[in-house]
Amino acid sequence: MRNLTLLTDFYELTMMYGYYRHGKTDETATFDLFFRPFEESNFCIAAGLEQAVEYLESLLFDDEDIAYLRSTKAFGEDFLAALKDFRFTGSVRAIPEGTVVFPYEPLLIVTAPICQAQLIEAALLNIINHQTLIATKARRVCYAAAPAGVLEFGLRRAQGPDAAIYGARAAVIGGCSSTSNVLCAQMFDLPPKGTHAHSWVMSFPTELDAFKAYADTYPENCLLLVDTYDTLGSGVPNAIKAFDYLTAKGYKPVGIRLDSGDLAYLSKEARKMLDAAGYTDAKIFASSDIDEYVLESLKQQEARIDIFGVGTKLITSNNTPSLGGVYKLSNLVEDGKAYPKMKISDNPIKMTNPGVKTVFRLFGRDSNKAIADVIALKGEVINDDKPLTITHPVERWKTKTITDFYAKELYIDAIVNGKRVLPHKDVYQLQQDCAASLDGFWEEYKRLSNPHDYKVDLSDKLYELKQQLIREERNTVAK
Amino acid sequence: MRNLTLLTDFYELTMMYGYYRHGKTDETATFDLFFRPFEESNFCIAAGLEQAVEYLESLLFDDEDIAYLRSTKAFGEDFLAALKDFRFTGSVRAIPEGTVVFPYEPLLIVTAPICQAQLIEAALLNIINHQTLIATKARRVCYAAAPAGVLEFGLRRAQGPDAAIYGARAAVIGGCSSTSNVLCAQMFDLPPKGTHAHSWVMSFPTELDAFKAYADTYPENCLLLVDTYDTLGSGVPNAIKAFDYLTAKGYKPVGIRLDSGDLAYLSKEARKMLDAAGYTDAKIFASSDIDEYVLESLKQQEARIDIFGVGTKLITSNNTPSLGGVYKLSNLVEDGKAYPKMKISDNPIKMTNPGVKTVFRLFGRDSNKAIADVIALKGEVINDDKPLTITHPVERWKTKTITDFYAKELYIDAIVNGKRVLPHKDVYQLQQDCAASLDGFWEEYKRLSNPHDYKVDLSDKLYELKQQLIREERNTVAK
Repeated sequence: MRNLTLLTDFYELTMMYGYYRHGKTDETATFDLFFRPFEESNFCIAAGLEQAVEYLESLLFDDEDIAYLRSTKAFGEDFLAALKDFRFTGSVRAIPEGTVVFPYEPLLIVTAPICQAQLIEAALLNIINHQTLIATKARRVCYAAAPAGVLEFGLRRAQGPDAAIYGARAAVIGGCSSTSNVLCAQMFDLPPKGTHAHSWVMSFPTELDAFKAYADTYPENCLLLVDTYDTLGSGVPNAIKAFDYLTAKGYKPVGIRLDSGDLAYLSKEARKMLDAAGYTDAKIFASSDIDEYVLESLKQQEARIDIFGVGTKLITSNNTPSLGGVYKLSNLVEDGKAYPKMKISDNPIKMTNPGVKTVFRLFGRDSNKAIADVIALKGEVINDDKPLTITHPVERWKTKTITDFYAKELYIDAIVNGKRVLPHKDVYQLQQDCAASLDGFWEEYKRLSNPHDYKVDLSDKLYELKQQLIREERNTVAK
Repeated sequence: MRNLTLLTDFYELTMMYGYYRHGKTDETATFDLFFRPFEESNFCIAAGLEQAVEYLESLLFDDEDIAYLRSTKAFGEDFLAALKDFRFTGSVRAIPEGTVVFPYEPLLIVTAPICQAQLIEAALLNIINHQTLIATKARRVCYAAAPAGVLEFGLRRAQGPDAAIYGARAAVIGGCSSTSNVLCAQMFDLPPKGTHAHSWVMSFPTELDAFKAYADTYPENCLLLVDTYDTLGSGVPNAIKAFDYLTAKGYKPVGIRLDSGDLAYLSKEARKMLDAAGYTDAKIFASSDIDEYVLESLKQQEARIDIFGVGTKLITSNNTPSLGGVYKLSNLVEDGKAYPKMKISDNPIKMTNPGVKTVFRLFGRDSNKAIADVIALKGEVINDDKPLTITHPVERWKTKTITDFYAKELYIDAIVNGKRVLPHKDVYQLQQDCAASLDGFWEEYKRLSNPHDYKVDLSDKLYELKQQLIREERNTVAK
């Protein structure tokens, strides 16, 4: 693990110094990390918690860091000396990776001495925003591709090495079967995928020479890229010749890959040619600027593609390249007394929910499908033995009474008093968790266009607390 | 430097193994790394060469890497043994960081034994695509903000730690004055920037308490965030009170920061309030979902903003979050004989330029402004003593004769036979290089909307070579 302690905005450090100077280091703050509604998707797939926990566990100002901070001339020596003993001693509750999560539901709830909780804001947001964004995009891409599989191919277009590595990890959580990125595959125990590029074909005198050479090298895994010169005029016929050559040697070819042109047309024609040559089992892979919208169009056209390689538009979440998650103070404990906090704004979308919270997901007892989520204050209990009336968080006249349900709290402890308690899970386990979480929702919520609005309500107690704080704030400002 | 040797697509390794198995390891390949035209910008600012060179210098399959590759069962033991001695021994010519560069002009030209040249494709593209993208976006943002300055604030919304760190580096090359990202500032010797967040204000009983506490902590650098509760109703009046408090102690306040709401209106009103209180020197900083288009609108509205903090939309290059650079084989030397290579395609935009190349930029002798670029074969000389007729790369009837010009070749040697020769430059030097390169272009090419089309032509020799290869290829395919 790299030392990412200084991966923070400078103002986190100047605020830490300010808290230190003003005797606030004993205050315990709770911050919520959540996202607001955004256009691309009505929900997200939580991801990045593992790296967030690793980051928190390894926080440490080394001598070089302290010398660097001294050089900025913004901090006193007493404070710099105190940084030497700085460790993360707080607690983190979180919605586990792979879980369907809605706007305003805190992905992470951090409770720690205020200096610690402040320092980590920027890096936690960086890690969680990124991976949650990509897992969410991957879910959409895989949803549109199904039953065809999706491989993550985006290394060369990702925004730097980490974006490629952790983006591919998140893509697999969201449903991709694996990645072409070898370093990611090594780090997270995934099978790396890929065959050859145009340059392989171009480095041989003819396309057929190149195909035969590849077949010789990987007789059991022979997948040939057929669009270097002319997909149907040369690529597929040469691939069939190479497959004949391979078959004569007793091997079974894997298939072909299309990487340009009209994938719907080419896949249908290539399928006919392969079938006519007896290669009905040979798979057709396709790549080339694919996203969920292209996939829906290919399905509409009955393209004959078995597996998709998706690069640029998945690894960068092309249409919405940032999640916009925020990290907001929700509670402050001073001398043993709790002060719930909220950001007041004229814009209701920017108001935050005060207090230390939790989220319940309510499922139908017969269907096992989610009905609504309720954001509540921690410690509230939902009695699922009797009907529950939930209320819209803003439009309070909208209520719904739910019966025959059970309630599941979404959080797990990730770190308790500085110690990791988050279980280690491999990426395919998280992928299964994601599939199970998605399985808890009706199709109406999961479709890509105009999904049905899922209800995320506030408990009465939380709603009342929020109103009370708004009233108090108005009075203070009025004074 | 992390070991990024396995930061590659799996097919680079399977191709390496194929080349190895087919006795092609002595062939010397040349690859061009270039981008094709894209919507957001008519040119790019080259960036990332420093990290690309560091990556190439540190390439090394360690024991763990080799054990991992063995575990994939895709490679023979002889090949794995040979990987132990793998080093990058090739050469790289490049357009220096900070240079204005146009579509099809190779940013990097790599010449190396084919296995080496192949392995590095994905990581080089990852590094150069990312930083060039962000430097290009930063150039646009800074262009629209001028004469106001721009600070890079995007850490929390960047696609992972590297995207934040190297994105901020690229943003400074493209013109940002500095960054809030402390780790980036430490690594690249930049002054980290920032003051306090809403949570600072919320952690004190009142806004004024928070402002005074901040003024006490940083009396010489007191910049106050005024939008936690009500910008004009509470924030600016309280900031003025805090400034009075500071002035009474003999210090001069820096200014205020707006982070939400209607920045045009709020900045004009805040300016009036500050001026009326005697704080005519106090600066107004602004942030909140800013990009070059918002900046042009703010200028149109005569907003009174001195410095902008730009986050999400710069660090992710929001509208175009990937550059789409490619890495294409252009030449192969086998047994001492050179074979220029090109990718043929029905789509002219996907055709590549064959051979080992160079690029000349032609400047007017009086204006010192660029007239056109010419992509030529390496070794070609442009005689600037006599008129030169240049020809459109596709529409050959379009010609232009240039007189009174001088020609400048764009490339420098970055690595020669595995040894770094690239001079070490700090990021502010690269920022100056960028400003100088931009200064070599008329405004017509630099404006953000509908810029004038800049001519990038092919030399006659290169054009003829390209036509010859297309003819040969057509004949081969016909056979």
